[in-house]
Amino acid sequence: MLIREATAADWPAIWPFFHTIVAAGETYAYPPDIDAAAGRELWMLEPPGRTVVAVDEDGTVLGSAKMNPNHMGGASHIASASFMVDPRHGRRGVGRALGEHVLAWARAEGYRGIQFNSVIETNTAAVALWQSLGFAIMTTIPEGFRHPTKGYVGFHVMHRKL
Amino acid sequence: MLIREATAADWPAIWPFFHTIVAAGETYAYPPDIDAAAGRELWMLEPPGRTVVAVDEDGTVLGSAKMNPNHMGGASHIASASFMVDPRHGRRGVGRALGEHVLAWARAEGYRGIQFNSVIETNTAAVALWQSLGFAIMTTIPEGFRHPTKGYVGFHVMHRKL
Repeated sequence: MLIREATAADWPAIWPFFHTIVAAGETYAYPPDIDAAAGRELWMLEPPGRTVVAVDEDGTVLGSAKMNPNHMGGASHIASASFMVDPRHGRRGVGRALGEHVLAWARAEGYRGIQFNSVIETNTAAVALWQSLGFAIMTTIPEGFRHPTKGYVGFHVMHRKL
Repeated sequence: MLIREATAADWPAIWPFFHTIVAAGETYAYPPDIDAAAGRELWMLEPPGRTVVAVDEDGTVLGSAKMNPNHMGGASHIASASFMVDPRHGRRGVGRALGEHVLAWARAEGYRGIQFNSVIETNTAAVALWQSLGFAIMTTIPEGFRHPTKGYVGFHVMHRKL
């Protein structure tokens, strides 16, 4: 598996699983009915943000991550990031590899920490992955997310110092 | 004091104190060197966001608040808000009146909570005001903000259920 910068040419390969994940409405606070243009706008970041793809030996896109300063000005030294793994390529360590890549990027760029703003508490695989990479649940916003089948659930603010 | 919708015509009255507050770099995670056009873009929100001004009997703008969904999609029922009071008109209850206005707006719009994403911990007047209006410090992101004279300080994530 290789992780490389995403280019505009990668979006057609990202969009199908991005759309599947967002339309399910279970793990992302994006509009479930988002279209491809709005999705690209959200996901394909310009500097100081950055978007990468994880690809296999054939060049197939397995997943993607975007990373950026979480705030501006005096708080721009805390990064944030978002991750999507194609469900057809799950359980291969793609999420972990992307997470480790983001940690390395943030360290290299001089960030002092990484904050995830809304990790849905029912997304237990993601919560466990981030905990295994050193992130702590700082708080949980009660009823912060409306899950399509589980109703109102909390979302975690997670953070890791660098 | 009256609180009313802000219009484009109010920006020239907001910009001077917005600029003073942002350039000081002590309480807002906005770029301290922001210009008026970028400031207007950040502050003067379109629906579903909304911006208001507090004015006195003469129509003088004393302060302003913006309010908006904090996230999209399944998390769009949590609001957020930001507040600026002209330092020349401080200690007159403008911040409290704007805060109470935002609480009433969020309730009326059906939000289930309000989250402030980065209340700088050294901004003790703001922290105390939000606590007096029922907001709790949910967590503090360590070293989340670089204060121009105090160095790295934390910022609070604050929340109030509605």
